[in-house]
Amino acid sequence: MRHAVILAGGAGTRLWPLSRRARPKQLLRLFDGQSPLELTCQRLHGLFSPENTWIVTLAAHRAPVAAAAPWLPRENLIGEPVGRDTANAIGLAAHLLLRRDPDATMAVFTADHLIRPPDRFAAAVLTALEAAERFPESLVTFGVRPRSPHTGYGYVRRGEELGGGVYRVAQFREKPSREVAEEYVRSGEYYWNSGMFVWRAATILAEIERLLPENARRLAELAALWPPPPGHSDLAQQYAALPRISIDYGVMEKTPHALVVEMDCEWLDLGSWLAVAQTRPADAAGNVALAPRALVVDGHNNVIVAESDHLLVVLGAHDLVVVHSDDATLICHRDQVERLKDLAAQRQAAFGDQFE
Amino acid sequence: MRHAVILAGGAGTRLWPLSRRARPKQLLRLFDGQSPLELTCQRLHGLFSPENTWIVTLAAHRAPVAAAAPWLPRENLIGEPVGRDTANAIGLAAHLLLRRDPDATMAVFTADHLIRPPDRFAAAVLTALEAAERFPESLVTFGVRPRSPHTGYGYVRRGEELGGGVYRVAQFREKPSREVAEEYVRSGEYYWNSGMFVWRAATILAEIERLLPENARRLAELAALWPPPPGHSDLAQQYAALPRISIDYGVMEKTPHALVVEMDCEWLDLGSWLAVAQTRPADAAGNVALAPRALVVDGHNNVIVAESDHLLVVLGAHDLVVVHSDDATLICHRDQVERLKDLAAQRQAAFGDQFE
Repeated sequence: MRHAVILAGGAGTRLWPLSRRARPKQLLRLFDGQSPLELTCQRLHGLFSPENTWIVTLAAHRAPVAAAAPWLPRENLIGEPVGRDTANAIGLAAHLLLRRDPDATMAVFTADHLIRPPDRFAAAVLTALEAAERFPESLVTFGVRPRSPHTGYGYVRRGEELGGGVYRVAQFREKPSREVAEEYVRSGEYYWNSGMFVWRAATILAEIERLLPENARRLAELAALWPPPPGHSDLAQQYAALPRISIDYGVMEKTPHALVVEMDCEWLDLGSWLAVAQTRPADAAGNVALAPRALVVDGHNNVIVAESDHLLVVLGAHDLVVVHSDDATLICHRDQVERLKDLAAQRQAAFGDQFE
Repeated sequence: MRHAVILAGGAGTRLWPLSRRARPKQLLRLFDGQSPLELTCQRLHGLFSPENTWIVTLAAHRAPVAAAAPWLPRENLIGEPVGRDTANAIGLAAHLLLRRDPDATMAVFTADHLIRPPDRFAAAVLTALEAAERFPESLVTFGVRPRSPHTGYGYVRRGEELGGGVYRVAQFREKPSREVAEEYVRSGEYYWNSGMFVWRAATILAEIERLLPENARRLAELAALWPPPPGHSDLAQQYAALPRISIDYGVMEKTPHALVVEMDCEWLDLGSWLAVAQTRPADAAGNVALAPRALVVDGHNNVIVAESDHLLVVLGAHDLVVVHSDDATLICHRDQVERLKDLAAQRQAAFGDQFE
């Protein structure tokens, strides 16, 4: 059967102060009152049954994630004690799927991307599912047709076409320079590497075993213990001992069985406040408000964010990102948002863990 | 006897969002946890007895003002139904003082200025009290020795010295240009016009009667009604009918009896957030924080204000005034703070009276 596995393990320090340790970015209700996780579930509705939908998240986030997906069977919510990157989250989920369904086909989605429109998304997912079933040894990735020469994404180059819009992967590429990205887009052969995949559960486990044998051994031990009995205190330690590695770096870039299916969608990784701002139209002065109450007077190119009714007023100031939360407010120049991930250390030095 | 009258009627739209209709700037506890009104009362402590201290404020502010000055006899708290500028507040207070003490000498102070140090302030007040008693027809103003060619203050030029640091007023001057202000300071003959005065209560009433006869007639009628009996619904209307005029423009600039006493103090009219910022030392990058929790990373010349423990973080942004209150936050370029007083109309158009 076909299963969906949603990776919802992100920490999201780059969306501070709304995103916190206890409330990662995939749970922020910034999109017409809905969170990225809720929007992800909606996109998958109709493609996968609730019984065959799984979410991997941090154990600390189980409760808010369960609240965001109340239809999800409890046993399909996999709580990692600590995050050890995508290869391990995917490997554990593959073990648990296989235990229930030895013939499982497994589609992996991220919880913090915005993807539109839903019908083109669904078409690409169906194509990839069929490819994984037709070529049972294959590892299928989604390549998003690039809208711009984005230098913040990785790229994947397509090779030989296998028919029906399915291609062999010729090469994965790290984040490129501007010039190289422009060349990629011009060529028509490159896609944005989306971090979404389809494969048979048995196939990805076999490739993890071949390419990441230590991870595979430890994951098999952990899966045998799953679900961890209450009070099983060694589990976090065992989980933390998994070598941290991403599925892209650990498997996809090394396997000879990678295929790519084109996804012709708007696709946005909510990796910064500027990315979040792209989800809303700007006013004539370039200001974007994701806040119930915002007032900009003689200011341009500001991004204003709040979940609550708190009023944010910008007067005669430009190029700022202003984000209000209940106990903290950020005022950041828009060219400096990348530095937000480094701010945690300074906050902690000054205020301990209170604002993390 | 000697009486102090504190004018605490300010609205303070220029200190929004902390200052509101219901909580004017003289009540903001921004100075080591104390408000300008509390600091004003402390400066006067020892110079005037509680029984001879009076506060004029808006009736709507009676409760918070009483809470800030719990030692004040209730009957010394004069609540104006609406503000009609200083000539009327002073005239009403003079009537009420005279009724209790026909020989009253009356010193008038503002509640929203910071003045240091207290001993030099006290010395000037004593000099002015003695001058008003020695020259019973005189209207004594305090002239603050200028620390800079400030273009936001009015000036007063001293004339003939009457002895003991008391001078006739040669001329009042409106806010000058930069060049003119520099000339004033160079001359050594000009003081900042402080808005603080000393006179006999009978004398100021006589001058109001001579120079502002309509105000005088209406004030006499109002004083005869005072204190207004509960439910006296016409009072607000009668009070609102007083022609609005300041004591400076209506009396001081026209009387031939004005004297000036030098006050050699640091003196700051808390008329804007930049003025408030001058009460605190800046860090090496020019940032000033009047907030329990503020963090500036790679930013300079910012002013950060909060009364609560809310954390304000400025990252890579400069020359901003950031002011947080429970339900609204302002982010304003420091060159634009003067426009804050015009912002109320735009707020009201968007949000009604909720944030006023």
